[in-house]
Amino acid sequence: MSVPAPKTSPRHRAVDTPVASVGWDGGAAVIIDQRQLPGRLVHWRLSSVGAVVDAIRTLAVRGAPAIGITAAYGMVTGLMAAGNASRAGALAELRRLEDIIGTARPTAVNLASAASRVRAAGVGAHGEGAAVTEAALSEAKVIHEQDALACAAMGRHGRAELTGSRRILTHCNTGRLATGGDGTALGVVYAKHAAQELDEVLVCEARPLLQGGRLTAWELTQAAIPFRLIVDDAAAAAMAAGMVDAVIVGCDRVAANGDTANKIGTYALAVLAARHGLPFYVAGPLTSFDALATDGSGIVIEERDANEVRAFGGSLVTPPEAPVWNPAFDVTPASLITGFITETGVLRPPYPDAIAEALGRSKEAAHV
Amino acid sequence: MSVPAPKTSPRHRAVDTPVASVGWDGGAAVIIDQRQLPGRLVHWRLSSVGAVVDAIRTLAVRGAPAIGITAAYGMVTGLMAAGNASRAGALAELRRLEDIIGTARPTAVNLASAASRVRAAGVGAHGEGAAVTEAALSEAKVIHEQDALACAAMGRHGRAELTGSRRILTHCNTGRLATGGDGTALGVVYAKHAAQELDEVLVCEARPLLQGGRLTAWELTQAAIPFRLIVDDAAAAAMAAGMVDAVIVGCDRVAANGDTANKIGTYALAVLAARHGLPFYVAGPLTSFDALATDGSGIVIEERDANEVRAFGGSLVTPPEAPVWNPAFDVTPASLITGFITETGVLRPPYPDAIAEALGRSKEAAHV
Repeated sequence: MSVPAPKTSPRHRAVDTPVASVGWDGGAAVIIDQRQLPGRLVHWRLSSVGAVVDAIRTLAVRGAPAIGITAAYGMVTGLMAAGNASRAGALAELRRLEDIIGTARPTAVNLASAASRVRAAGVGAHGEGAAVTEAALSEAKVIHEQDALACAAMGRHGRAELTGSRRILTHCNTGRLATGGDGTALGVVYAKHAAQELDEVLVCEARPLLQGGRLTAWELTQAAIPFRLIVDDAAAAAMAAGMVDAVIVGCDRVAANGDTANKIGTYALAVLAARHGLPFYVAGPLTSFDALATDGSGIVIEERDANEVRAFGGSLVTPPEAPVWNPAFDVTPASLITGFITETGVLRPPYPDAIAEALGRSKEAAHV
Repeated sequence: MSVPAPKTSPRHRAVDTPVASVGWDGGAAVIIDQRQLPGRLVHWRLSSVGAVVDAIRTLAVRGAPAIGITAAYGMVTGLMAAGNASRAGALAELRRLEDIIGTARPTAVNLASAASRVRAAGVGAHGEGAAVTEAALSEAKVIHEQDALACAAMGRHGRAELTGSRRILTHCNTGRLATGGDGTALGVVYAKHAAQELDEVLVCEARPLLQGGRLTAWELTQAAIPFRLIVDDAAAAAMAAGMVDAVIVGCDRVAANGDTANKIGTYALAVLAARHGLPFYVAGPLTSFDALATDGSGIVIEERDANEVRAFGGSLVTPPEAPVWNPAFDVTPASLITGFITETGVLRPPYPDAIAEALGRSKEAAHV
């Protein structure tokens, strides 16, 4: 796997287009190639299934919701390319595509579930290949729109929940680049800023790929939201110094009991928040909840390439053969989580019940 | 302040000289320029007081004990350069040098105390300028030798203390590059390895300047000691996965009550070790203990340049004006520290007493 190589000479100040991590443009998803931020704002049209998988695997597109949307559109791109006139051919292709795209990365549940939803929509369509394709595209667009709405709702609920918390510490990138809307944890930040209830965001840089330092710092600069960037290791000192009112993070997969897989380092933040008596919130749409995972032990944690740790920006900084352990995520036990900020409201302990109820209501609503 | 820029093409495999972080060579300290490791092994002769201060400030030499030794030799270099034949002139120069060199960085107590010891030795000398200089050089060499002996003793005591802990997690660099001997925390690792009581070292990379990824990984590669490098954020996951038996870190300044200033991120490791029921040891010579600091609140924490965080390996990775908070150290409360591995043995709670007693014994020994 190649190492993303953003170099110097950032041009982000010249950019005034709104950030859209992913869009659909007549047959293909168009993403922002996030490996090149903040140095360059480059769009990438994912015209083939190979490109879709490559974009997801190399983190050109990342963030559980944005990955789900990209996967959904990618299913349609693949279906169109296969050009099956028959219903049977189209459905067989959807099954094949789900196997390929839905497994491009293991941890974020949105990826597999979005691919599954698109296939199910095709299966449910009446008619031949064209109808199957139409239903698949329609479902992909619904997934995208639902995510944008979920982000807006999370912003509202999170803002109401955290009115008194003016200094927010967050991790990685969970904003417009990570979702189809304003974001999950960062969506709450945008909402708090709009309501003039935010003094400062402390942004953990999120080694190894620096999604905080590269992407969140870029987003917040664009939005003129006050922030300071810190190395991940400085979060504890910031809490001890009284610089933080609350911690909000995103999630890649939430188990039925509330155990949460998220960017490596999240678990440490939760332990530290508990020690300092700070509320620790996980923000995420219900699409990031996995009712089939009983607890965190059922979540597969992706281990990524050693060169992500050995190097950054194309510069090797360690001995070239240095052995590395590079898990991309960790699991935060539910007991450390103050609440889940979802599009249906804030879920509070006891979680197995609160989560099951929210997922049940969501399923009912989908069936209306 | 410029950002260290180690580039690719490491040549460390060709190096088979023993690692000596600092040595005295007829009038000047010669250090390894640690900013250039692991890519290049470059020595730097500190022929002027300006060079000594620059080397300390830019972390060309770092690690509390190595800084102390370099400062001690730097005092002598300055004294020799001033060329005062008279006793009064030499003593005035020593006072001036202590002000300059002893304050080059604020946090590590070894720096100020080594400069103070060299000056005191000059004051205590009988005779004119030549005798003052001779006494100063003699004291600097004693500081160097004492540190090497202290490292060896810490290795022995730490090895005996941690016989059953075969998998050690450590932070930053506390080895041959950081001291005048085998190291503090890493000195224990060398001793455990020699005794065949070590399975693996987990090395936290220590952002922002990556002393773990650059220096400890280099040292352990040289010594053929098995290790894996992790991003700092992965320490919690490693503990949760049962990959760690004990944590050992170094220290830059230990207050009288045991509160310990060390590389940013140390405090988080201590909190995480406590959560996982793992012993958390601080290794350091008594020269790193500051009886005048009642507790951690009395320790000045150095904040360093924003570009250390904005850049990685010489490449800018964030928006160029991204606001940054960059404390170089944090303070770990004594209550989280299982024991202090010192040259006189392992100090255990209650610390105010154990530390006071060890410092008292040390002072008595010095007066014999």
